[in-house]
Amino acid sequence: MLGGDTLKAWDETFDIPVRGRSKKPRETGFTMVIDKGAGVATTEDLMKTCGDYIDCIKLGFGTSAFYDRDLLLEKNEIIKKANVYSMPGGTFLEVFIWQGAYDRYLQRAKKLGFSAIEVSDGTIEMSMETRKAAIKKAVDAGFLVISEVGKKSPEEKIAVPIMHQQIAEDLKNGAFKVVVEAREAGKGVGIYDESGTIKKDEVEAIVSGIDNPTKLIWEAPIKSQQLALINRFGVNVNLGNIPPEDILALEALRIGLRADTLKQVYSKVGEI
Amino acid sequence: MLGGDTLKAWDETFDIPVRGRSKKPRETGFTMVIDKGAGVATTEDLMKTCGDYIDCIKLGFGTSAFYDRDLLLEKNEIIKKANVYSMPGGTFLEVFIWQGAYDRYLQRAKKLGFSAIEVSDGTIEMSMETRKAAIKKAVDAGFLVISEVGKKSPEEKIAVPIMHQQIAEDLKNGAFKVVVEAREAGKGVGIYDESGTIKKDEVEAIVSGIDNPTKLIWEAPIKSQQLALINRFGVNVNLGNIPPEDILALEALRIGLRADTLKQVYSKVGEI
Amino acid sequence: MLGGDTLKAWDETFDIPVRGRSKKPRETGFTMVIDKGAGVATTEDLMKTCGDYIDCIKLGFGTSAFYDRDLLLEKNEIIKKANVYSMPGGTFLEVFIWQGAYDRYLQRAKKLGFSAIEVSDGTIEMSMETRKAAIKKAVDAGFLVISEVGKKSPEEKIAVPIMHQQIAEDLKNGAFKVVVEAREAGKGVGIYDESGTIKKDEVEAIVSGIDNPTKLIWEAPIKSQQLALINRFGVNVNLGNIPPEDILALEALRIGLRADTLKQVYSKVGEI
Repeated sequence: MLGGDTLKAWDETFDIPVRGRSKKPRETGFTMVIDKGAGVATTEDLMKTCGDYIDCIKLGFGTSAFYDRDLLLEKNEIIKKANVYSMPGGTFLEVFIWQGAYDRYLQRAKKLGFSAIEVSDGTIEMSMETRKAAIKKAVDAGFLVISEVGKKSPEEKIAVPIMHQQIAEDLKNGAFKVVVEAREAGKGVGIYDESGTIKKDEVEAIVSGIDNPTKLIWEAPIKSQQLALINRFGVNVNLGNIPPEDILALEALRIGLRADTLKQVYSKVGEI
Repeated sequence: MLGGDTLKAWDETFDIPVRGRSKKPRETGFTMVIDKGAGVATTEDLMKTCGDYIDCIKLGFGTSAFYDRDLLLEKNEIIKKANVYSMPGGTFLEVFIWQGAYDRYLQRAKKLGFSAIEVSDGTIEMSMETRKAAIKKAVDAGFLVISEVGKKSPEEKIAVPIMHQQIAEDLKNGAFKVVVEAREAGKGVGIYDESGTIKKDEVEAIVSGIDNPTKLIWEAPIKSQQLALINRFGVNVNLGNIPPEDILALEALRIGLRADTLKQVYSKVGEI
Repeated sequence: MLGGDTLKAWDETFDIPVRGRSKKPRETGFTMVIDKGAGVATTEDLMKTCGDYIDCIKLGFGTSAFYDRDLLLEKNEIIKKANVYSMPGGTFLEVFIWQGAYDRYLQRAKKLGFSAIEVSDGTIEMSMETRKAAIKKAVDAGFLVISEVGKKSPEEKIAVPIMHQQIAEDLKNGAFKVVVEAREAGKGVGIYDESGTIKKDEVEAIVSGIDNPTKLIWEAPIKSQQLALINRFGVNVNLGNIPPEDILALEALRIGLRADTLKQVYSKVGEI
């Protein structure tokens, strides 16, 4: 019933232009949403409307620090009921690791109702051993672990071979997927240039050293980025940092219900 | 009471700087909003606050395909109670026409509570006969019909005389208004250049062949576009693809309660 | 409990990277939000989640004119209960002053539940005497008064010495703070160039003539602007025209829970 090849309100009235969209719980075709502080009512409304098309909600940066405890618990409960993972932003985890407080982080995250943990080093430095320990501890604590490669600052750039090594290690250590960093804005970072245009060479370089590209989640906050990645990797490419208001627009783009992808599959002059 | 020259919370305390704003049900001064997936609670809140300033809500692209049927019915019911038309995106209609399933489209749209239909060929090709039949069938089925001219892809451009012919035909066949395409983003398409700046020559060329410019709805998602079109066509220009969060800001712009248009009408140094 | 150095959901589990964030009621570290028409339910949700991090909500431009009276009263009541000031946009006040209806403006604003008044001349012209009278009357009527310096049109530019004089006068006449104009968009106006980049010389010129820079509120709708101003003036810089969806992201930026500011304070390689 959820997602997939039978659509709901219109179901048998038409053929979905691009078939094969995965259903929940998804192994591929993951959509990770960035949340910057939606309230409980807004979150409930979002889950009712778009829950089947969201796999994970990230409470971006350290925004989860500003919630009343009960409110955050309630929000995470609503997210959980919709079969969506909830996780704090990676930068927040980095604060705890820097402060030597990682065990407390995992304990509190559990108590607050988070079900996933993002392990990143976008801002702070971290040895490969620490990264490994962070992933393993979170897995052992029962979280879905999503790691991230790439630096947030354009001045620091991870060499592609290091990235390949990190990705392979992270997956071996229990990460479910590895995110390729692009920040909330998607400009001047990682695989995107200053205007947000995708650098195809960079994408190919990253993919070239990966056994299984479906293990990558590409942060792609901008529509043209989502389109480029769908065109390269197909309907079930894993995408991250999707703004909440764009979830259904992305879903339409994935399955050919938006001009850009419909154009590529439609085959003959329409007639009545 | 609704809209028009008596404003509500502040009513008789001041004179509206730009008078003559039309009231509902509007023949001119239409505001068409693009919705990308707002939930039922969000829609209800929007209608309570802004309902008098929205004439039509378009569920953009194929986003209506992702709703649970009951949820979509409920959303359309809320929209209807606010005396606002609800219609699926034109691209979605194009999918059905391409698939030879147009009758099913109209039947289901009716069952789902939609009250308007957008007939477009922004993505697929369609003969003039098919276009005519699509409009007529939708009118016969009791829908308000809004047609659209223009292609979504910048590589395909409709010659202005063809556009004139389509507009005249569509109106003759029963279309209530004809939308001039600009997509959700309003850049590099139709009357807008890559930066979203209006191409005045293009606007004048289109208008030059039209008997009644109030029959056109200009898609204008960006404020500077709305301003340019208000300046050209007046307070009651028909505007489309307005983001839901900008409805009151647009209304303020129309009647001189925002700097850009107030500037043009205020006449003397303020005094106390 | 509210804001400040003890955070809520995660409290004693970590040390806040940048300490000293002010608590409500704030004398410094003011966050003024621009609202373009949020409904009652949306406002209630926002207040529950972010109320401790908002000091004032401005109903931008003349948008407050479009509400039903009861709805606006209800919205202002919700804002008040969260200990947040509510004020109409300055442009709206300018309409009344231009029309010689300022007393009616203040009376009605009071009846509608507004608690703050913005006195500006971004669009109309106003003598120093009128400006002074406007501020004094609003103060006498029991409002928190926030004045604004700067013109909305890029063609009109206030000379910095005039600005210094206005700021000093406004504060002497009872203004709580003085806003430095940047409009909703933050581009090509005041201290920002066409791309929204901060003009540091302009900022320094303004500050150079001010006794107490904490009396200024800088309109800064874009993240890079917020960052530049936090870096220049510290965690408790007063910021205005913050979009509602960015309140927690700004708060994270202020206290080092977002990469850009965390980067500046973290001191050693993270370890587990």
